[in-house]
Amino acid sequence: MSELKGAAIFGQSGGPTSVINASAAGVIQEALKQGCITKVYGAAHGIKGILTEQFYDMSEEDSYELDLLKTTPSSALGSVRYKLKKAEDDDTDYKRMLEVFKKYDIRYFFYNGGNDSMDTCNKISKYMQNSGYECRVMGVPKTIDNDLWGTDHCPGFASAAKYVATSTMEVYHDARVYDTGMITILEVMGRNAGWLTAATALAAYKGNGPDLIYLPEIPFDMNKFIEETSEIYKKNGKVIVAVSEGIKDKDGTYISEYGSDTAKTKDAFGHAQMGGLAATLANIAKEKTGAKVRGIEFSLLQRCATHWGSLTDVNESYMAGQMAVKYAAEGKTDYMVAFERAEGTEYKCNIKLINLTEVANTEKKIPREWINAEGNGLTQAFIDYALPLIQGESHPPLENGLPRFAKLKKVLATK
Amino acid sequence: MSELKGAAIFGQSGGPTSVINASAAGVIQEALKQGCITKVYGAAHGIKGILTEQFYDMSEEDSYELDLLKTTPSSALGSVRYKLKKAEDDDTDYKRMLEVFKKYDIRYFFYNGGNDSMDTCNKISKYMQNSGYECRVMGVPKTIDNDLWGTDHCPGFASAAKYVATSTMEVYHDARVYDTGMITILEVMGRNAGWLTAATALAAYKGNGPDLIYLPEIPFDMNKFIEETSEIYKKNGKVIVAVSEGIKDKDGTYISEYGSDTAKTKDAFGHAQMGGLAATLANIAKEKTGAKVRGIEFSLLQRCATHWGSLTDVNESYMAGQMAVKYAAEGKTDYMVAFERAEGTEYKCNIKLINLTEVANTEKKIPREWINAEGNGLTQAFIDYALPLIQGESHPPLENGLPRFAKLKKVLATK
Repeated sequence: MSELKGAAIFGQSGGPTSVINASAAGVIQEALKQGCITKVYGAAHGIKGILTEQFYDMSEEDSYELDLLKTTPSSALGSVRYKLKKAEDDDTDYKRMLEVFKKYDIRYFFYNGGNDSMDTCNKISKYMQNSGYECRVMGVPKTIDNDLWGTDHCPGFASAAKYVATSTMEVYHDARVYDTGMITILEVMGRNAGWLTAATALAAYKGNGPDLIYLPEIPFDMNKFIEETSEIYKKNGKVIVAVSEGIKDKDGTYISEYGSDTAKTKDAFGHAQMGGLAATLANIAKEKTGAKVRGIEFSLLQRCATHWGSLTDVNESYMAGQMAVKYAAEGKTDYMVAFERAEGTEYKCNIKLINLTEVANTEKKIPREWINAEGNGLTQAFIDYALPLIQGESHPPLENGLPRFAKLKKVLATK
Repeated sequence: MSELKGAAIFGQSGGPTSVINASAAGVIQEALKQGCITKVYGAAHGIKGILTEQFYDMSEEDSYELDLLKTTPSSALGSVRYKLKKAEDDDTDYKRMLEVFKKYDIRYFFYNGGNDSMDTCNKISKYMQNSGYECRVMGVPKTIDNDLWGTDHCPGFASAAKYVATSTMEVYHDARVYDTGMITILEVMGRNAGWLTAATALAAYKGNGPDLIYLPEIPFDMNKFIEETSEIYKKNGKVIVAVSEGIKDKDGTYISEYGSDTAKTKDAFGHAQMGGLAATLANIAKEKTGAKVRGIEFSLLQRCATHWGSLTDVNESYMAGQMAVKYAAEGKTDYMVAFERAEGTEYKCNIKLINLTEVANTEKKIPREWINAEGNGLTQAFIDYALPLIQGESHPPLENGLPRFAKLKKVLATK
């Protein structure tokens, strides 16, 4: 394909991870190198920044600070949860976007996010195509939930998994300190897919993990939970249970909603807000067993702990961003960059491209055969899958004993 | 003093820290070297293990595993919360302990713990003296609360502080990801003294910390909290508040107990809701400001996160254990090992000894002049105090991307 000269814009979308900025560094640093890319813009708060012409000139940033993005948590440019309407129903936002793209001669659009964001990316891509405006659109995946379709795994998952597994091992030790009984409930993020909760099985694999793991892939049965927990409690005195925030009963009701009515507040995408599940289950376990209980929610910590990242994840996340730019410069468009695991015993991750249409809004869940027959733990197949991803240690450089995170100048672009 | 030949016993007591095992390593490895010490026992669950003759022969352990104790969280020998009665009132336990000491010819007793444990240590020391049984008794301090009297700081505090400050910095970034308002409440351990909550000021010192810090040293005023939070919310849209679990109102009622009234709302199963302090305050902030809120409890994570320890703390904790043994071997008894900060600009920590009678049950709180005039933050004096303590990084060796913690054989001692 012929060379396409023009500016590039990059945006971050959805809930952050501890490595979404590593992908940002990959996109920005590679885009600054490409001769066909005349300007590199970073959108403030994803497409919201495009719609409002709030974006930064990334050439103004120090390269040291861009490097630091690899170990800086959260979305350095700001993120957004903004659902684009279907262009057929209301094309206001699309028209506005096209206007902005034309004004700044934006010919490259890179969008970094999860399921909803890939849907956004897909819609924009199709709109630009239908409008006859040449713009290469590439999605860069990210989500601690690891639930994007068509990729072996998602940037962000492994670092969260390493943090969750390590913290579980540490809590396992702490919860055994007294010779009295105790039931500990660990609540892990993951609305519809249990990948991150399953990561606690890595701690179990090391001999310091949960006795029971409940995933959203398997309908949650309160009586079964009480039975299984009580049995282990009677036998061992200590029980550790990991649960996904998104576990639902057979009727599809979130167990976290059992706890309160207020949890029915929905976010912009219509998802129910989660929270308080660990406390709810701990309370029930206490009532049924008389045990001392503790509910622990990994909360935001699990998605922003760059101090304990997977180096594999950081490198792959950077590569995902970098390759999105390289492929676009070569003429590719309308794809999401994805990971493919090479055959063989040694772990190797290759890049492939998936059509945005295919990936948008399709969720990848844990295969049933990776979950044990009882539906309360993982099999070796999951361990074999996850273990290579958490290898290597990444943490920010330290100044005075504490992390030194990137500080961007954020110079607003002007026309 | 003349050489005293005999066995040594060591016990861990109270809530664990991420470095209490570093002190254990210091005591055990030094005791195994001392010629005057004929046997080294590790008591299972502190004095409970002595009373029941459940203790391990530490010479049976591999030296590699003992080294690993420096980076293994929780109490490897098991801990206990056991309040000894005054010997004048009931000397049953004391008599039993003397019997066991005589049976195993125990002439050295090392006890590792916080305020209550130093009280236990003191009582045992005095009883042995009064019984005319020669036994050298040394307390080794530990507590993430940092509230032991007579020592510049306590082993365990700095690692917890480093973890809390780092996690606060990370959450600070995460909580700024969207361009919508949000109030985040961080709940930190510390029942009567606010040292660990104050550690969030280190994050603020780095520019990524809480706007408001409420400590148990200052009576908590709900209206002031609402006013101060609302004001910052109106101005900045983002508010981060750090609170100590032990904040109390002017009448001495724990704010965490306020929650239990509103938390009496029953869930679908008719269980009362367990409301943590962070959740309670977050709810109140939400009600008053309409903001999106999030309550985060660092929970057990803050006291067992060896993956992000302070190397200064690990080394000092080891040294505290080691020096307790050296001093005892030299003839010292009835003391707690304590830290003294050397004069001068460069940080240096020396060991001193404090009479157990003096230290027992006296709590050290944050000096009023280290807290700002408004009572909602710390002054530079606290930063100057705390910053040297969190220097240097310590984490366990990794195997397959996850920590390798010590595995003790725990061979029960026999007579």
